[in-house]
Amino acid sequence: MEIKEQKDLDLEKARHSLAHVLAKALTILYPNTLLTIGPAIEDGFYYDIDLDHSITQEEYQKIEKMMKEIINKNEKFTKKIVSKNEALNLFQGNPYKEEIINELPNDSEISLYYTGDDFFDLCRGPHVENTNNLQNFGFKLHSVNGAYWRGNEKNKMLQRIYFWAFKSKKELADYENMINEARKRDHNKLGRELELFTTVDYIGQGLPILLPRGAKIIQILQRFVEDEEAKRGWQITKTPFMAKSDLYKISGHWDHYKDGMFVLGDENKDKEVFALRPMTCPFQYQAYLNKARSYKDLPLRYNETSTLFRNEASGEMHGLIRVRQFTISEGHLMCTPNQLEDEFRKCLELAIYMLKTLGLYEDASYRFSQWDENDKEKYIGTKEQWDEAQSTMKKILDHLGIPYVIGIGEAAFYGPKLDIQIKNVFGKEDTLITIQIDQMLASKFGMEYTDSDGTKKNPYIIHRTSIGCYERTLAYLIEKYAGAFPLWLSPEQVKVLSLTERNNDYAKEVKVELEKNGIRVEEDLRNEKIGYKIREALSMKIPYLIIVGDEEENNKTISIRGRGFENKSGLKLSDFIERLKNEINTKKI
Amino acid sequence: MEIKEQKDLDLEKARHSLAHVLAKALTILYPNTLLTIGPAIEDGFYYDIDLDHSITQEEYQKIEKMMKEIINKNEKFTKKIVSKNEALNLFQGNPYKEEIINELPNDSEISLYYTGDDFFDLCRGPHVENTNNLQNFGFKLHSVNGAYWRGNEKNKMLQRIYFWAFKSKKELADYENMINEARKRDHNKLGRELELFTTVDYIGQGLPILLPRGAKIIQILQRFVEDEEAKRGWQITKTPFMAKSDLYKISGHWDHYKDGMFVLGDENKDKEVFALRPMTCPFQYQAYLNKARSYKDLPLRYNETSTLFRNEASGEMHGLIRVRQFTISEGHLMCTPNQLEDEFRKCLELAIYMLKTLGLYEDASYRFSQWDENDKEKYIGTKEQWDEAQSTMKKILDHLGIPYVIGIGEAAFYGPKLDIQIKNVFGKEDTLITIQIDQMLASKFGMEYTDSDGTKKNPYIIHRTSIGCYERTLAYLIEKYAGAFPLWLSPEQVKVLSLTERNNDYAKEVKVELEKNGIRVEEDLRNEKIGYKIREALSMKIPYLIIVGDEEENNKTISIRGRGFENKSGLKLSDFIERLKNEINTKKI
Repeated sequence: MEIKEQKDLDLEKARHSLAHVLAKALTILYPNTLLTIGPAIEDGFYYDIDLDHSITQEEYQKIEKMMKEIINKNEKFTKKIVSKNEALNLFQGNPYKEEIINELPNDSEISLYYTGDDFFDLCRGPHVENTNNLQNFGFKLHSVNGAYWRGNEKNKMLQRIYFWAFKSKKELADYENMINEARKRDHNKLGRELELFTTVDYIGQGLPILLPRGAKIIQILQRFVEDEEAKRGWQITKTPFMAKSDLYKISGHWDHYKDGMFVLGDENKDKEVFALRPMTCPFQYQAYLNKARSYKDLPLRYNETSTLFRNEASGEMHGLIRVRQFTISEGHLMCTPNQLEDEFRKCLELAIYMLKTLGLYEDASYRFSQWDENDKEKYIGTKEQWDEAQSTMKKILDHLGIPYVIGIGEAAFYGPKLDIQIKNVFGKEDTLITIQIDQMLASKFGMEYTDSDGTKKNPYIIHRTSIGCYERTLAYLIEKYAGAFPLWLSPEQVKVLSLTERNNDYAKEVKVELEKNGIRVEEDLRNEKIGYKIREALSMKIPYLIIVGDEEENNKTISIRGRGFENKSGLKLSDFIERLKNEINTKKI
Repeated sequence: MEIKEQKDLDLEKARHSLAHVLAKALTILYPNTLLTIGPAIEDGFYYDIDLDHSITQEEYQKIEKMMKEIINKNEKFTKKIVSKNEALNLFQGNPYKEEIINELPNDSEISLYYTGDDFFDLCRGPHVENTNNLQNFGFKLHSVNGAYWRGNEKNKMLQRIYFWAFKSKKELADYENMINEARKRDHNKLGRELELFTTVDYIGQGLPILLPRGAKIIQILQRFVEDEEAKRGWQITKTPFMAKSDLYKISGHWDHYKDGMFVLGDENKDKEVFALRPMTCPFQYQAYLNKARSYKDLPLRYNETSTLFRNEASGEMHGLIRVRQFTISEGHLMCTPNQLEDEFRKCLELAIYMLKTLGLYEDASYRFSQWDENDKEKYIGTKEQWDEAQSTMKKILDHLGIPYVIGIGEAAFYGPKLDIQIKNVFGKEDTLITIQIDQMLASKFGMEYTDSDGTKKNPYIIHRTSIGCYERTLAYLIEKYAGAFPLWLSPEQVKVLSLTERNNDYAKEVKVELEKNGIRVEEDLRNEKIGYKIREALSMKIPYLIIVGDEEENNKTISIRGRGFENKSGLKLSDFIERLKNEINTKKI
């Protein structure tokens, strides 16, 4: 059933009022400042300014102090309505405000808000009554980033001044602590420290290089997903990563998604123009189209470990989460109307099984992503088709009792989606998994089946992922476990350390025995102090260390040291191997 | 050691003489024919002609008959030397011959060959003495294809007339039989019939779609290769499929390989230009470059299941063998000079192990691919560097006792290669596996290690594949086994057929038991005659069929039918499962 997103409107109002206080402070401190916009956001507010001087960290306190002075003056927020011409006069010399005002109809009533008598800003409101209402707030300038005017890289780069802002100093302090903790887990930092991935300037933003430790985790995940899907009746395909523009013209990508695609060649010059695929759908449909299908063949489920490409701006790229190339556990399922709900449920069950196995289920929530009927250009199909597709999906979701938030304008261009959202360690939400119902593309590609009555029909298509994108999943796993992955996912499961070089042969014997049992094992036989060797191994968050010295060698035993502070001596290797195998086979988290 | 390629020069001379006879026949039959070139090839000869009438199959006999008439006249082949001007006069009106003549130096002595008194062609020779020498030959026009003048798609499309030609009619008949047998195995035909892959016009040439049966085989191969490599000390990476032009400028691809690459964007317009990778090397090097390396860390072995892209003309594409996108068992190994030979040997052993396991080893031969010092533009590095790299490689190959043919001008642009060649079912040879020694790229990328004496050195790099490109390997496997793959590689290993619908429950029980044991199993429970069900399953070359009727159900047994005409009843399922497991685990071929 639908659940409404909760918004604290009072908090939002106060944050936006603080943005005005900031704006006033900036114009006092830096009279040349050109103000643009300053909205409230999830954890505070920002203001984008055009100023030829770059604000440095040393100035943060000065800005905060000026804001406090303004607040202490208990200045009143007053609304004033002006005509478009008056507004243009008042903001003359500020091209950003002029641009905003010029976009409004000529007969608009334009509202300004004063803070005190001497400062006003273009604003729809609402605001707190006076700055005294902001007295108890905790706020802090935490960063200044570059941001293009209106997010368009052809425009001028502005300075975006970010503040955290909460109802009390205590809440701010708690949030700051949370952020500091989160930073230690940030996959973009920790993932590099643990040698899971890197990026390289001359290769490009959004094109991460998975180093052996990270690539090993993705290999394990990929095999796990492919095997689980095979068990559940999915048939694997391997389809090309590019196609001629002809394909995308049929699918609708050329008209509705071309800006997001990497195009190879020039339509005006070249005989054949190719594009890298942003989605797998029209490629995987070819498996269905390979021969005539009957209702008896349905449902047909095709899965693929599929690499996709999205042409996004370099500035948008972030670690393993926002990337230009990614690999996804993709799948398309063709079925009859009767099979739709049951197959949708099974897709959802598979996704939930994956999330639970990885330990990410508790961080998940659902969005029912619908089209925006005021923005028809973004979509194929008619209002009737969308109404039908969305009501079909709503019926299924409600029948399955899924609690979802509705997202208008978030559908795929061909149909509505159920998005499974995960929050990262900083609280930022992204889609990890998606299940979509599509009633439109089958007819575009001439996909048919012969029904029991002999008539030809188009199948329903479910587009789905089961673990989502592997790079993004790895990012969430790094943050969830702070790099201390469950044993079954750990790139190295055990490291064998010799106490002295005398014990190297025995250490090697132990290693061989572990390898024979399919355990991923490393060795450290260097002539270094054992404390040093242990610290180095623990810093890479290796689950178990086996330490062997004379005592262990003589008694044919091992000592273990776990990253969870476990410390035991005199163990039999065979017992420990049984324990490891059990922990791996049950995918213990 | 080096072995020389054997050429039968007499046969080549005769074939080329037959090409002249063909040319004469064509000018008699089609006086408008413009002749271009007509070389001998491996199984005969061809002639490219420009003729506004398309030669159809109905005309083949007429052409052969005219050739036989010319041969029966016992016409003499006579050489005549003319000046460039004389040659231009003689071939006036034939732009192709004019183009060839114009490229020769002004003072050239140009040779013509007459066949009889009334026909001559531009030709270096040699030829047989007279057509009587061709009397006993078996030759046959087998196809006419389109071919661009000089292989350039900007030029006019000509007609290429292909003949088989052998020393006797018997040899021709044998060859024709071989070809007819080969056609049944041709992966480009059989692979589609067995639903292993397909291609689709609107996706494009050279971009095969692997259907579930083909994709499953590649999944099995990929896991086998990755696991075997892990056992042998290779660490897996996963690197991006594209990079900014900056990377390729460092590696040398931009200067030496750009025509073969798909470029995204326009250097004159776009801030960032990307290109799809044609090789993995500079990407995988980033794993090495991720931290400082010491001689103690070497050798470092990185493997990757890597997708590559080559921008080749549509006309060159063929099934799974010549493709624009392919996935390869790629690897790069960094080592010290002392380690080079041993590591090279281990790479070769791995490749041979793979070929033997797949049953392809007996079809393999070796080429030592060297640079062409007369074509320096194609390569980076100096003559001294190439001499050193090639002599290092020669020493290793000779020391390991590898019998190789030398291929001049076949090296990679950065170093010499050992190519392992496989012949397809038609006798055409292609490279499947390659092992290369590279002394040049490490310094370009600043790859170093600290040696035991504290100095910084560039490592040697071995570039190698262990099974080559998966698509191409699948093509060879299809042809080798005529689609009847070894059990461990079969997409479905067993199919359970019910004799009547009464036995469906028992059939399902049997299926579940097989699945529990990790066997890939399908079912056919349709209400169809058992003979029909068996024929259908055997046509897909499924290794084993289990047939269950009342007798099997009552006795809790199974009957089996193997594609190798094996036919047994009254078997215990558990015994059969043991047998299957043994056949799978030993990778029996």
